[in-house]
Amino acid sequence: MIQILNYDKIRCDKITRDEIFAQAEEQTNVADVVSEIIKTVREEGDSALFAYCEKFDKAVLDSLEVPQSEIDAAFAQMDETFIKVLSEAKENITQFHSRQVRSSFIINETDGVVTGQKIIPIEKVGLYVPGGTAAYPSSVLMNAIPAKIAGVKEIVMVTPPTGGSVNPAILAAAKIAGVDRVFKIGGAQAVAALAYGTESVPKVDKIVGPGNAYVAEAKRQVFGRVAIDMIAGPSEILVVADEKSNPKYVAADLLSQAEHDKNASAVLICTSQELAVAVQQEIEMQLSSLPREEIARASIESNGKIIVTSSIADAISVANEIAPEHLELCMDNPFDYLDKIKNAGSIFMGRFCPEALGDYFAGPNHTLPTSGTARFSSPLSVDDFVKKSQYTYYTDEAFSKIADKVAYFAEKEGLSAHARSATVRKSKR
Amino acid sequence: MIQILNYDKIRCDKITRDEIFAQAEEQTNVADVVSEIIKTVREEGDSALFAYCEKFDKAVLDSLEVPQSEIDAAFAQMDETFIKVLSEAKENITQFHSRQVRSSFIINETDGVVTGQKIIPIEKVGLYVPGGTAAYPSSVLMNAIPAKIAGVKEIVMVTPPTGGSVNPAILAAAKIAGVDRVFKIGGAQAVAALAYGTESVPKVDKIVGPGNAYVAEAKRQVFGRVAIDMIAGPSEILVVADEKSNPKYVAADLLSQAEHDKNASAVLICTSQELAVAVQQEIEMQLSSLPREEIARASIESNGKIIVTSSIADAISVANEIAPEHLELCMDNPFDYLDKIKNAGSIFMGRFCPEALGDYFAGPNHTLPTSGTARFSSPLSVDDFVKKSQYTYYTDEAFSKIADKVAYFAEKEGLSAHARSATVRKSKR
Repeated sequence: MIQILNYDKIRCDKITRDEIFAQAEEQTNVADVVSEIIKTVREEGDSALFAYCEKFDKAVLDSLEVPQSEIDAAFAQMDETFIKVLSEAKENITQFHSRQVRSSFIINETDGVVTGQKIIPIEKVGLYVPGGTAAYPSSVLMNAIPAKIAGVKEIVMVTPPTGGSVNPAILAAAKIAGVDRVFKIGGAQAVAALAYGTESVPKVDKIVGPGNAYVAEAKRQVFGRVAIDMIAGPSEILVVADEKSNPKYVAADLLSQAEHDKNASAVLICTSQELAVAVQQEIEMQLSSLPREEIARASIESNGKIIVTSSIADAISVANEIAPEHLELCMDNPFDYLDKIKNAGSIFMGRFCPEALGDYFAGPNHTLPTSGTARFSSPLSVDDFVKKSQYTYYTDEAFSKIADKVAYFAEKEGLSAHARSATVRKSKR
Repeated sequence: MIQILNYDKIRCDKITRDEIFAQAEEQTNVADVVSEIIKTVREEGDSALFAYCEKFDKAVLDSLEVPQSEIDAAFAQMDETFIKVLSEAKENITQFHSRQVRSSFIINETDGVVTGQKIIPIEKVGLYVPGGTAAYPSSVLMNAIPAKIAGVKEIVMVTPPTGGSVNPAILAAAKIAGVDRVFKIGGAQAVAALAYGTESVPKVDKIVGPGNAYVAEAKRQVFGRVAIDMIAGPSEILVVADEKSNPKYVAADLLSQAEHDKNASAVLICTSQELAVAVQQEIEMQLSSLPREEIARASIESNGKIIVTSSIADAISVANEIAPEHLELCMDNPFDYLDKIKNAGSIFMGRFCPEALGDYFAGPNHTLPTSGTARFSSPLSVDDFVKKSQYTYYTDEAFSKIADKVAYFAEKEGLSAHARSATVRKSKR
């Protein structure tokens, strides 16, 4: 049963993240296995990929790339409702992420000086999509759509061919989201192929998307050679609920996070002992009819918590301290508190805004900072698929006015060659 | 002497970064030393910092924090020119970076749906500033000013007390840039203190600024607990020059990069064999009168290159392939080529725009992506000192219209608790 804890005001000020949310488990040591796989893919290219595919995915493939005809066929076999829901989700995601697009700027001074900043799409992006039971078409949309909006030229998706073929829902989502090429490769070998390129697989500049421990470790190891999105920790939800909240809703929301993974954390902070008890009971009731009961129960038993505070303001200060991935504000007037939220990946506001709405449909991204990193990092966005480049232009006249200042500063730092590159330009050819 | 290479058109298309620029040297194994230091600082706090300071900086301190009076005294002892140049640089840096400030957005749909994105400053930032001969006041400005513009509440600077005291130019720059607190701590121990906090040193959310191998390794090790800016590789410049370029200017610019470090790379691509030879000779001449001749010569001998191509367009395509940290376009019409540059940290345009102008004065940042990472990463900017948070609000009515779609999508992914969090809200209390 989920535990109920009481914190008075003083306690709240001292609360730390580690007391509230489960910490990421130490990974078993997969680093050596992964570095061997990366080395082999770099050296042997496609033939290594075919071999790993046979070994890990039990699939003997003729070709690594999924032909367009297979993608079209997958799309055609989907039921109409699915395509409709996927398309509507795409529309919402597109509307939200389009607002993130930034313009380049140029500062034209009147005295022969120009500076500016260009926003340039990253050229090629690799998107990892897990296979098997964890095949999430929503991930395809959430990663590919912002990349597309950013202007990425080529989006290359990789996904393991469980039993030789790719989940058709994933292929349909890829088609809807505008993925350019799809390869039947999974695991660390797929990350290696994207980072270094092989005969068939193009080398990309950035790799995004979730994966298991091997995929995460491979991303860690190729980081620097290519960019990566993030290494996500276990999923987390913090629900802040007032005394009028419906225990059924709150319990359902906590369980929606708990069913992901036994390491997931689902925590409620509420201002009413009565609600705390009602939610506790409701969780037990709902658990018994869940297909993923075992996982959800393990998560709730080890990481679930209900904390009773004396005010919503206290609850908010706890939320800021622990910087949750998902934060729900279950109350009538959530906008009154929005400005007080300093650290949270995605905020779900009001009584009719379960976290699942954001996983699939509302538009904001579902790839979010976990493990307290919302203190300094952000949801996946269009920004993750562009980079900036600065430029500076000075005319002869403009430069001659400030050359001595540049030289003076450089000498102050003991860098005479820097100084000379300024002074040399004062004696014209 | 710098080598001159000739590439024909075909060769240019196949050029790789590794042929052109030196690669980062393998670090000697500092990881163990650093992890021991971090562990000790976490366990022992301030007393560990005092001990390391005595051991590494040969300084016995009474207090770790530099008092405001010492900062004011350092400022007062600076000559007027320095303060003037520093202030003018600050003004330019402020003007440029102010343009990077982003607004939050809110999307108000008419049907009871609100989504939005808030831009929130990171609360506390730590700024590492190297000591000794590598004490660069320009780094203080380039890191602290964007943080200040972003709205960071507290900027905490750490810098080693070489011989017991901090370089006064660094303190003066800290005052001008708006740094809030300064501590006399350097090395891995300073990074550990910022990441975990001690009795005296506040725990921060992000650590920025350059440092030696131990500082870099410490940043790598605390990454995840806090954010870091980047782990910079050796400095690099690529100069693209047309046949009318002044060899004196070009040679001076190449040497300004070479004097940083024997691992720095300075490369010229030009369209004229005559200019190539003239620059080669000019480098030899200028080298002989440089205070840092030994470093610059070592860099030029091992990593310097002049490449002759048949056109500026070819030179640009090489530049895009190697994604240099600094790119100079020495020609009359650099704006004609600006849109063709896809990968470069900072671009210096025209004949009167040496890279040193950007190090100190022009306004764009001098903390730039090295080692080819300009393919996917950006100069330090205001963006590095904020994070984003998303939010979603649906009314009862708005949610009831789409609850089935959310549930459908969730079931498609096998996540029934997600689905239930949507359907449960259809049966009102």
